[in-house]
Amino acid sequence: MSTKNPRVAVVGATGAVGREMLKVLEQRNFPASEVVPFSSIRSAGTKVPYKDDELIVRELKEDSFEGFDIALFSAGGSTSEKFAPLAVKAGCVVIDNSNAWRMDPKVPLVVPEVNPDDLDWHPGIIANPNCSTIQLVVALKPIHDEAKIKRIVVSTYQAVSGTGQKAINELETQVTRLFNGKEIVSDVYPHQIAFNCLPQIDIFLENGYTKEEMKMVNETKKIMGDDSIKLTATTVRVPVFYCHSESVNIETVEKLTVRDCRNILASAPGVTVIDYPEKGQYPMAIDCAGEDDVFVGRIREDETIENGINMWVVSDNIRKGAALNTVQIAETLIARNLVRVA
Amino acid sequence: MSTKNPRVAVVGATGAVGREMLKVLEQRNFPASEVVPFSSIRSAGTKVPYKDDELIVRELKEDSFEGFDIALFSAGGSTSEKFAPLAVKAGCVVIDNSNAWRMDPKVPLVVPEVNPDDLDWHPGIIANPNCSTIQLVVALKPIHDEAKIKRIVVSTYQAVSGTGQKAINELETQVTRLFNGKEIVSDVYPHQIAFNCLPQIDIFLENGYTKEEMKMVNETKKIMGDDSIKLTATTVRVPVFYCHSESVNIETVEKLTVRDCRNILASAPGVTVIDYPEKGQYPMAIDCAGEDDVFVGRIREDETIENGINMWVVSDNIRKGAALNTVQIAETLIARNLVRVA
Repeated sequence: MSTKNPRVAVVGATGAVGREMLKVLEQRNFPASEVVPFSSIRSAGTKVPYKDDELIVRELKEDSFEGFDIALFSAGGSTSEKFAPLAVKAGCVVIDNSNAWRMDPKVPLVVPEVNPDDLDWHPGIIANPNCSTIQLVVALKPIHDEAKIKRIVVSTYQAVSGTGQKAINELETQVTRLFNGKEIVSDVYPHQIAFNCLPQIDIFLENGYTKEEMKMVNETKKIMGDDSIKLTATTVRVPVFYCHSESVNIETVEKLTVRDCRNILASAPGVTVIDYPEKGQYPMAIDCAGEDDVFVGRIREDETIENGINMWVVSDNIRKGAALNTVQIAETLIARNLVRVA
Repeated sequence: MSTKNPRVAVVGATGAVGREMLKVLEQRNFPASEVVPFSSIRSAGTKVPYKDDELIVRELKEDSFEGFDIALFSAGGSTSEKFAPLAVKAGCVVIDNSNAWRMDPKVPLVVPEVNPDDLDWHPGIIANPNCSTIQLVVALKPIHDEAKIKRIVVSTYQAVSGTGQKAINELETQVTRLFNGKEIVSDVYPHQIAFNCLPQIDIFLENGYTKEEMKMVNETKKIMGDDSIKLTATTVRVPVFYCHSESVNIETVEKLTVRDCRNILASAPGVTVIDYPEKGQYPMAIDCAGEDDVFVGRIREDETIENGINMWVVSDNIRKGAALNTVQIAETLIARNLVRVA
């Protein structure tokens, strides 16, 4: 390991994920020599909390990355496309939260509990997967290792925070206005999200699936390093603020009992099993907010196929689904000596 | 058909489903000589709206059913167990919304669009299926007829109204209190429902599934009249007031394209297809409240298996899922001359 600590740029620092990144860096005592928040000109000059201090957000410019070693991006695809290569050119390792590089075969797509070795071949940019995929693969990788997963049928219950701070505000505003008998407007979502379920996340593609659904299909294969895993998804936005829940049905090659699954998951990194039906205990969105782990419960045999398991997977989409996973990637890079500190 | 109109008792008339039954009887101009609401002593004496009038709710007693021809029950399992046989003895046909008789092999479990012929062998009692099952079989029966369904994987997004008026109040109160920074209590549900997803509906059974999940498994087979249909369910309560949504994955024996499915469903009784991804249109809970039909959209091929289809099914759980289906059963009985009018 280098004796000097890296200097870290946080791009998109005023967004929901950016703020959480700063919080996670602080909470985990990330060994940075300095952390500097960046944003577009619109939010530049505002302050964001970090440790006992407040940091003044700087405007992101083409020459912003001089002297930095790590750049954590969470500012949308077009910002990443434009600025990530500039950061790499300036000597940074970029860990990018957008969709821009995820399916680029030259860019590793990494969840540290699942495929840390893919970091070895990073070309300067490392992609952070989509939130709904991260929690799924953390829960399924240990099962795949043990029993080989053939097929996954997943239906999601996704929180509005996945869309960002504006969506959090939209749910809040719609609920308040409805309870006061006022008309509501939907700016962020195509339809009302308050007291509703929207079976659409991101745009529709030619094949009738949404982009979010196909992200789950394609990213799962890439992260697990196994193109033979079949996955079909229905992704749904629900009126929940934080944490995505997922109803997951899997078919494995080898037989696993419920007890096998519980044991495998209980000792898996980044997973906490909460599965006590007799006590009415299972993972729930409201309990997992602010937590690091992926929580799994309602594990039961699906007797409609030979080797079937149903489970319920919940995680904080802003933490493990975004900010925490990004910081964990940075930590793994440092531990593996894959960051050059200038 | 009889020339005289039947006299109808509505048991549990002050509950969410009972009130909707009165509304449905009125809206459909149900040919009743008289409609009389009954309830437990606690609500007896209160008034319920019916046509341009208000009806005074009578206390349900052992001899209440004298002179009635049809009794619509929606007052919970124990009331049905005690009073339905008395109603039958008094000459009524009972259509029961509770779980008491659904799996009794001597009692038909009927959705008029799916298995009206099962009414022919009714022994005085006819069971109305569980709400989450009704909308599923209305959507799947026409597909089963065409392509034979082998396996169903369903995850539900169920509204609080399915639990009754108290649960509607609980969601409302919890949301209001949370927005005012106050502590909340959960009386109706085991955990907070506001801004949360509860992967538990009804109690847990020995096999780790909930009673609601096993209702879907068993009732689907009975209504479809086909024990070979395999179904596995994850039933989830979401913070939505009205209408259940379902993410449904099916495997069929014969190949169906998306267009086939749309065509079959578009001409199926009681089904409306809303499936225009290019316009961002699909069924949603907020749009289906107060509607009679089962709405299907997001129909797409599941390419992880040879003959797979995904779809999104939404219906008003209080209407088609309960009150409307009950009244439709009564209408079908009359049309088939299966009610003796005293």
